[in-house]
Amino acid sequence: MYQPVTPAIAEKLAAIVGSKNLIYQDEEKLENYSRDEVAEKEYARMPEVVVKPNSAQEVSAVMKLANDANIPVTPRGAGTGLSGGAVAAHGGILLSVENMNRILEVDLDNLMVVVEPGVVTNEINETLKEHGLFFAGYPMSLQSCFVGGNVAENAGGGRAIKYGVTGRYILGLEVVLPDGEIVQFGGKRVKDVTGYNMVQLLVGSEGTLGIFTKIIIKLLPLPTTKIDLLALFPDVETAINVVPRIMTEGRLVPTGIEFMDRLSISTTHDYLGEKMPYPETNAALLIELDGSSAQQLRDDALAVSEILTENGAMEVYAAETPDTQEKIWKVRRNIAEAFKAISPVQSLEDIVVPIARIPDLMPVLAELQQKYDVLIPCYGHAGDGNLHATVVKKTETDINVWRETLPRLLEELYQKVFALGGTISGEHGIGYKRKSYLPLVLSEAEIALMKKIKLAFDPKNILNPGKIFDLT
Amino acid sequence: MYQPVTPAIAEKLAAIVGSKNLIYQDEEKLENYSRDEVAEKEYARMPEVVVKPNSAQEVSAVMKLANDANIPVTPRGAGTGLSGGAVAAHGGILLSVENMNRILEVDLDNLMVVVEPGVVTNEINETLKEHGLFFAGYPMSLQSCFVGGNVAENAGGGRAIKYGVTGRYILGLEVVLPDGEIVQFGGKRVKDVTGYNMVQLLVGSEGTLGIFTKIIIKLLPLPTTKIDLLALFPDVETAINVVPRIMTEGRLVPTGIEFMDRLSISTTHDYLGEKMPYPETNAALLIELDGSSAQQLRDDALAVSEILTENGAMEVYAAETPDTQEKIWKVRRNIAEAFKAISPVQSLEDIVVPIARIPDLMPVLAELQQKYDVLIPCYGHAGDGNLHATVVKKTETDINVWRETLPRLLEELYQKVFALGGTISGEHGIGYKRKSYLPLVLSEAEIALMKKIKLAFDPKNILNPGKIFDLT
Repeated sequence: MYQPVTPAIAEKLAAIVGSKNLIYQDEEKLENYSRDEVAEKEYARMPEVVVKPNSAQEVSAVMKLANDANIPVTPRGAGTGLSGGAVAAHGGILLSVENMNRILEVDLDNLMVVVEPGVVTNEINETLKEHGLFFAGYPMSLQSCFVGGNVAENAGGGRAIKYGVTGRYILGLEVVLPDGEIVQFGGKRVKDVTGYNMVQLLVGSEGTLGIFTKIIIKLLPLPTTKIDLLALFPDVETAINVVPRIMTEGRLVPTGIEFMDRLSISTTHDYLGEKMPYPETNAALLIELDGSSAQQLRDDALAVSEILTENGAMEVYAAETPDTQEKIWKVRRNIAEAFKAISPVQSLEDIVVPIARIPDLMPVLAELQQKYDVLIPCYGHAGDGNLHATVVKKTETDINVWRETLPRLLEELYQKVFALGGTISGEHGIGYKRKSYLPLVLSEAEIALMKKIKLAFDPKNILNPGKIFDLT
Repeated sequence: MYQPVTPAIAEKLAAIVGSKNLIYQDEEKLENYSRDEVAEKEYARMPEVVVKPNSAQEVSAVMKLANDANIPVTPRGAGTGLSGGAVAAHGGILLSVENMNRILEVDLDNLMVVVEPGVVTNEINETLKEHGLFFAGYPMSLQSCFVGGNVAENAGGGRAIKYGVTGRYILGLEVVLPDGEIVQFGGKRVKDVTGYNMVQLLVGSEGTLGIFTKIIIKLLPLPTTKIDLLALFPDVETAINVVPRIMTEGRLVPTGIEFMDRLSISTTHDYLGEKMPYPETNAALLIELDGSSAQQLRDDALAVSEILTENGAMEVYAAETPDTQEKIWKVRRNIAEAFKAISPVQSLEDIVVPIARIPDLMPVLAELQQKYDVLIPCYGHAGDGNLHATVVKKTETDINVWRETLPRLLEELYQKVFALGGTISGEHGIGYKRKSYLPLVLSEAEIALMKKIKLAFDPKNILNPGKIFDLT
């Protein structure tokens, strides 16, 4: 059993982080730390105390105290997560890294940056711009999320086809372990096979194995030019069939390929008060290309356009300027808002399937919409099969009916996704929200191994307990 | 204590894999499986029995038997490893995957292949060529190594700057665990954050956590054109300073940047009976560019040449045709042979340092050469700081003096590499050969975590014991 945060404990914590960096017995302020961006209220929990350490040493002292006193600690970035990972599921101490927000080093000779976990992701690239470099981790929330959270969740985003996800760029981590020990994993080394790959085990571990206090990130040359293509298709299958052809016939790796189904497109047009230009559109692809030679990129865009047209696109729009690009992206960017306007009661999903199975997913979603009387627009990252199918409550549905049916709907969805060779999370994580569904997609043996790894790091289960799985 | 392989056990093993797939009590045939490509004879060990299973089911049955009978099992690919990983350090069963050598599926719609572990790496790309795709894992031994070994060691090679190492392309693994259970990790999913990253934990685990029986590999469009540049420099520092500039000023990511120091270049020229074209050369870079547009690549090569010349290269040669490319690569390809001709008694090292620290490594090597009276040519993958400094015995040195001094030399080298922010293995692995040096570069806490992970998978320590670290 965990111990409560008594006034005596709070005092000790204040002595570590400074009393201005601690929130205790202040419901209003604590409330800000009780949830992330998950829409469902049942995944909110009040922490007993919030601490905002300023250094690895302070994080270590907090962990030592918590470990000795048997109080759970939940690490938290900007709270932009979508799986409840930064919510104090068992109360206790919420450890916010917001004060650890420095870019410690821009190492131009090694093409790396060293940052603290509380740096806003986009700030890294703002700093690097003048040096012609960038960090290719691209979560959609990069204007507000913290890089520490990106690493903890192994955040993805829309540019993973070309650039991969966050983990590809993480070479080293300074980590405070659950017992308070500060350990360096990896370093400024592009290659490293010295023992097991601890860095990539920590990446995506959702704050359950250690707290990052320093992150070494590999950089790439910043592309100087970008072309977007919007292609409209008569059906999903035709759209998805083009995706591999861009790579095989075009010999190109696009930066990103976004997908929107008819429901996403039409609802968003309605929301924006616009008419669909091609009413017969049942699917659209938004293809991004980037590079450092404008001429080469134009050639590439032409080649891709030809492949799109030859393979059934009804119309292809190209956008080379920021203005036209913004126009092309407008529908995609507004989908989430459009459905929030219909109903804020929804479950944003993060399923992944092999890209060639996306067309097979569509009848599954259609069937579930009908069976459970909900809307399920489907959009997301077609190039990597990661789709944000979002289950949206219809206005007329009673909230209790919704609450009762949603878990059944999700279970059915996940089972069908698994049957297509997919899984339940591509970039948002399992966290608090999806843990009960984990056995649908992972074998008992795999979950057992994960639990043993968790216990190897955290034998008392005090670091972010109640996430990914429950330990008994 | 492990149990010996008795005739009764050998009979049971024969019943599993078939008697023609078993070698027992045949010294001559067993001897072929007693070593890998490590030069030092002290890392050879005779297995008691060799089995060559044909399927995951047979691997599973062997593991179950071994686990019950407490007999160690060492998995083995083609035996081309350079750290003793595939040598039966504790005798017992050597499990060769040579019969599991099928390319199971070329999935053009998902841009993936599914292979068995005993496929020769290069065969994958031979099969894929006609489809305009390739697997970008590029170990130097790709003509002979098995892909299963590449995954087990997380093999690198000369093209890691642009393409990363093997692990980047491994999306799924079918694995037989030490207790014989067959588990699927990952799948045909480009993004997947469903729990901990077990796939990347297994990649590079050197055969100590499980035996791969099926590997899902992500493919890329095959580049159609290639230009190599050879640049000669007056000193190491000037050469290395150019490396990041290619990426920052040139906004280019070369496929590879190989480095050769003066000793490597001059000895290899002597070996080839050729004169060094520029006798004042003290360092050389070999830069590979690849792509799918010949014009673009020529522009890139020109830009890189300019950067090289502006930053101190004395001479730059460009090679666009296979013939001229072969000529440019000749010296690099013959370094290992040149030093084997001087003395086959050597220790091929695999150190990594941050690229900007390569110049600081040179005086370290010079000092060690003098102090221990050996040759240490330094060449390798400059673009990622992974250098094959090779300690070579001088002909006149007594073999016993060599044997006695080498461990002290290596310890000193590794300590200095660590002080430069480096580590002891970039791509060859720790294995049998480097395990005693692990505590020089990893903290006690990190090694303790690795051991706990090993025990989580393999509580009886029967799978490839004596590798990476010893368990007490």
